[in-house]
Amino acid sequence: MSATPAVPASDPVSSPVWSIDPRTGEQREQVGVEATAEVVDAAVRAAHAARGVLADRAVRAAFLRSAAAQLEEGRDEFVATADAETALGAVRLNGELTRTCYQLRSFADTVDEGSFLDVIISHPDAAATPPVPDLRRYKIPLGVVAVYSASNFPFAFSVAGGDTASALAAGCPVVVKAHPDHPATSELTAAAVRRAAAEHGLPAGVVGLVHGFDAGVALVVHPLVAAAGFTGSVRGGRALFDAAAARPTPIPFHGELGSLNPVWVTQAAAAERAEEIGAGLAGSMTMGVGQFCVKPGLVLAPTGAAGDQLVKSLGGSLADVGAGVMLDHRMRDNFVAGVAERASLPQVEAPVLPGPGPDAHTVGPGFLTVPAAELAREDGPHALLLEECFGPVTVVARYGEVAEAEALLARLPGNLTATLHVSAAEASGADGGSDLLARLTPLAGRILVNAWPTGVAVAPAQHHGGPYPATTSTSTSVGSTAAERWLRPVSYQSTPEALLPPELREDNPLGLPRTVDGRREG
Amino acid sequence: MSATPAVPASDPVSSPVWSIDPRTGEQREQVGVEATAEVVDAAVRAAHAARGVLADRAVRAAFLRSAAAQLEEGRDEFVATADAETALGAVRLNGELTRTCYQLRSFADTVDEGSFLDVIISHPDAAATPPVPDLRRYKIPLGVVAVYSASNFPFAFSVAGGDTASALAAGCPVVVKAHPDHPATSELTAAAVRRAAAEHGLPAGVVGLVHGFDAGVALVVHPLVAAAGFTGSVRGGRALFDAAAARPTPIPFHGELGSLNPVWVTQAAAAERAEEIGAGLAGSMTMGVGQFCVKPGLVLAPTGAAGDQLVKSLGGSLADVGAGVMLDHRMRDNFVAGVAERASLPQVEAPVLPGPGPDAHTVGPGFLTVPAAELAREDGPHALLLEECFGPVTVVARYGEVAEAEALLARLPGNLTATLHVSAAEASGADGGSDLLARLTPLAGRILVNAWPTGVAVAPAQHHGGPYPATTSTSTSVGSTAAERWLRPVSYQSTPEALLPPELREDNPLGLPRTVDGRREG
Repeated sequence: MSATPAVPASDPVSSPVWSIDPRTGEQREQVGVEATAEVVDAAVRAAHAARGVLADRAVRAAFLRSAAAQLEEGRDEFVATADAETALGAVRLNGELTRTCYQLRSFADTVDEGSFLDVIISHPDAAATPPVPDLRRYKIPLGVVAVYSASNFPFAFSVAGGDTASALAAGCPVVVKAHPDHPATSELTAAAVRRAAAEHGLPAGVVGLVHGFDAGVALVVHPLVAAAGFTGSVRGGRALFDAAAARPTPIPFHGELGSLNPVWVTQAAAAERAEEIGAGLAGSMTMGVGQFCVKPGLVLAPTGAAGDQLVKSLGGSLADVGAGVMLDHRMRDNFVAGVAERASLPQVEAPVLPGPGPDAHTVGPGFLTVPAAELAREDGPHALLLEECFGPVTVVARYGEVAEAEALLARLPGNLTATLHVSAAEASGADGGSDLLARLTPLAGRILVNAWPTGVAVAPAQHHGGPYPATTSTSTSVGSTAAERWLRPVSYQSTPEALLPPELREDNPLGLPRTVDGRREG
Repeated sequence: MSATPAVPASDPVSSPVWSIDPRTGEQREQVGVEATAEVVDAAVRAAHAARGVLADRAVRAAFLRSAAAQLEEGRDEFVATADAETALGAVRLNGELTRTCYQLRSFADTVDEGSFLDVIISHPDAAATPPVPDLRRYKIPLGVVAVYSASNFPFAFSVAGGDTASALAAGCPVVVKAHPDHPATSELTAAAVRRAAAEHGLPAGVVGLVHGFDAGVALVVHPLVAAAGFTGSVRGGRALFDAAAARPTPIPFHGELGSLNPVWVTQAAAAERAEEIGAGLAGSMTMGVGQFCVKPGLVLAPTGAAGDQLVKSLGGSLADVGAGVMLDHRMRDNFVAGVAERASLPQVEAPVLPGPGPDAHTVGPGFLTVPAAELAREDGPHALLLEECFGPVTVVARYGEVAEAEALLARLPGNLTATLHVSAAEASGADGGSDLLARLTPLAGRILVNAWPTGVAVAPAQHHGGPYPATTSTSTSVGSTAAERWLRPVSYQSTPEALLPPELREDNPLGLPRTVDGRREG
C-alpha cells in the first residue's frame, strides 16, 4: 500500500515529500506526503493480509523474475529519475539496476532450489535418551518485514533491493520505508514491483511503501511487523534497533550501520607494489564519491620510503579524480565539517585536503595521514578518526613496527570488510602471511587479499555483514543466505504423513535438498 | 574460573551462597560466595584467553566426550547432590544425567561432521553483475558465551547442559551463571568438566562458573562477552535481554522465557479417546511437578459429553498423582498464590483444586476450567490465565464451535510447543486435519500431533524455541542446530590458497560437507 495518493497539497497534517536535485539543491517535484501512523498501519495490514498468497514457492519465484523484467523494461526512466535525485550518474545507475535485476533472479533461483528451507528429518530412535520421536523440521516465513532503504543505492538497497528480494524469497511481504534522497525513484520502483505482482495475481500490498521519518519509527514498532532490515547510519540504525528491542514483543533487526573497512599494507607489499596500491586505493575510496559502505576508510601503511611512495601514488591518483556531487546537501555539509574537524587534530596532515569542491554543490576527494601509534592511544585525541566519514576521504595511518599496526587494529570497532595487501612471498604463505589473515578475521565479515572492498558480489558465498556496528546481527544482507534472516524453524513431531506440509513428507514429493538422519540428500 | 574459593566466611562484601534442601527449606551447606564484579571479570578474561585452544575441532570433540565420561563417572554423587538441592528424585535425575551425556556426545558428533561450519564456495564468474570474485565462506566462533542455568534442569540446561555443550562445539568458551537452586550441583559439574578439559590440556577457564544475581547482570554487559544463552522466567530473561540489547555493542541473547504450550483437542478426538487424552494430559502436566518449560498449560477441550468425559478422566488421573516438592520455596509460594488468584476469577472452576500439599513443603496438582469464549475476550478479566504458571496446574478452556477455539488461539502469545489431538479420520487427512495444523503452526516452534510436549528429544530435527516470549530469537536451544547460535559467517575474497584456513581450501583437505557453486558436496 502506497502512501502516495494524488498529491493532497492541502493536507493539514502530512508534510510534503519532495524529490530534490543534489546538483542544484532545488526541488524537482512533490512526490507525495509523509505517511501518518494510519497510513503506516494500513500498509502493514495490507502486507500482512498478503502473507498467504506468498506461501506458494513457485509464485514467489515467478514474481521475483517478473519484478526483474519490469525493472528492465522501465530502465531508461528509472535511471534518469535516480540520477536526477542522487547525482550518481547514468553509468553507475545502469550497473546498479542490472545488479538489482540479477539479485532478484538470484533469489528466485534460491527459492526454486530450496536449500534455504533447511529441511532436517530425524526418524524415531527408541534407543536415545530421551527417545527420539519422528521429527521433521524446516523453516517458515516470519511475517511482514520492514525494509529501510539506503541513501546510496537507490535500486540495489532500496525498494526492490536485497532486503526486499530476500524477504519475498523467504515468503514475507514487505513494507519499505523510502529514503528521502530518492522518493521519486522509490515510487517508480514500487509501481514496477506491483505490476509484477499483479501479473501473478498478488495484491499490491505485498510490497508497501511509506515516506517520512515518523513513518519509519511507526513501522518498526507496529505489532504486525515481524522483522526489519536496515542500511544506513549508526545513529539512525541504532535508534531503530533500540526501538525494535524495546517492543513488548521484540523483533529481529538486521541493520547495517557503519564500517571503517581497514586496509593493512605490509612493508613487503609496499616495497613491491607501492604505485599500484596507491592508485587502487584512490579508485576504491572515491568510487561513487566515497559513498559506499565498504569504502576503505582507514589504511595502515608502513613508514619509510615504500610507504612514502604509496602515499605519493595515492595523492597523484586523486589529482586525476574530479570533484563530485554527494547524495544530498546534508551529507555534503557533514563531509565538509567532518574532514575539517579531522584535519585539525594534532599530528594529522592532509597531503591532499578533502573538502568543498569548486562550486557550492560539489566536494573534492583527499586523504589524511596520522602516525598509527598516535591513533592507537586509548587516551589520545584521535577517536574521531576511527569513526566512518561518509564521502571521498580516507585516513592513512603510518606504522613502523608491526606491533604498532596490531595495536591499532585492536582498537577498531567491527567492520564489513578488512583488507590485506601482501607481497608475492607473503601470499605464498611465507613470512607469516596466514598469521596476518588470522589477525584481520576478528575485525570483519569479509576479508580480502590484494583486492579492494568496493564492489559487493551477489553470490552464495558472499557475506555482507560484520561485528557491530557493521551489522546489528550475525547475518548478511547480500548473497543467498540473506534469506535466512526472514525465516524461523518449526519442527513437527509424530505428525501423520497426511497432515504434513509437502516439504516434509517422507517421499519428498517436491524433490527438496534435505538432511535425513544426518545424511545429506539432494 | 570459579567463584568458589575456600569459603571466606568473613568476606566483607560477598554474600554467601547456600545449598538449600527444598524438602525442608533448610540450608545444607555453604557452597561459596556470590561473585563480585571483579570475580566475573576474571572469569570472563580467563574464558577469553581460552578461545585459541578451542580452535582445533578435534580437541573440542574429544573434550565434549571426556566431559560426558566425567559426568558418568561421578553419577551417584551428582544425582544425590542434585536430588538434595532440587527434590527432583533419583529416577528423573539419573535420566537427565544420561540425557546430558548423550547431548555432549551428540555435539561432539556435530563437531566431527562439520556441516555446522556451513562452508560455501563461489568460484569467480566474470559474467555476473557485478563480477563474482573467488569467495569462500564459513562460520567462526563468536567468542565468550554467557550461559544462564535453568532451575528445573540441574544437568541438561545448566553447567554442562545444552547451551554450554553447543557453545563449546562452536568453539566458544563459556562462563556459566549458576542457578541458585542448585549451586552445589553446579560446582560439582564444573569440576567434572574441568577435569575433562585438563585431560586435553585445556585451561580451567574454558568453562567458568559464577554465582549470584548481580554476577549475572555483570556477565551480560561485560565487553568481552559475545553472546548469551538463557533458560528461565519471562521477567528475568527479559531484563537480561534488555541489558544485552542496550550495550554499546549489543550481543545476541538467546533466551527461552515462557510458554503456555497449548493443546487443542478436536471434538472428534474427544469422542474417540477422551479417557486416554485425559490420562495423558494428567501425566504430562504433572511430570517433574509441573516444572517443565513444555508443560501443557492450556488445553482447548470441546464442550459436550466427550469433553466432559475428558475432564473427568483428567481429574481421576490426577487423584493418583501425589503431592510433590517444587524446586524452591519461592516457586512454591508463587504457585500457591498464582493458582489461588486464577481460581478466584469469574467463571473459573476448579474440578481438582491445585495448591498447597499436605505439608508445608509440598504442592498438590490440579486444574481449572473456563469457557473458551470468555478467555478469548480481549477486555475480559482472564488475561492472567494466558500467563504461564510454573507447577502442576493446567487450564482447560471449553469451546463449543471451532470458531471459539480459533478466537482463543488468536489471543495466545508465542509458545515452545503447540499440540493437536485429532481423531483417526482427521489424522488421515479427512475432515480438515491439515487445516488445523496450519492454524497451530504460527503459534509455536514445535507442533505435535496425538502426543505430549513434555520430553524434548536431542536430535538434528529438534526445534526447542518459538515466537516470543517462548524465545527471544529464532533459534533452538536443543538439537544440533543449537550450535548455530554461537557462530558468525566470514567470507574470504580473492585469498591465495596458502593463506586460506584449511576448511576453505580448494581440495577440501578436511573432507567437510560444503556447497560449491550451488552444488552440495559430501
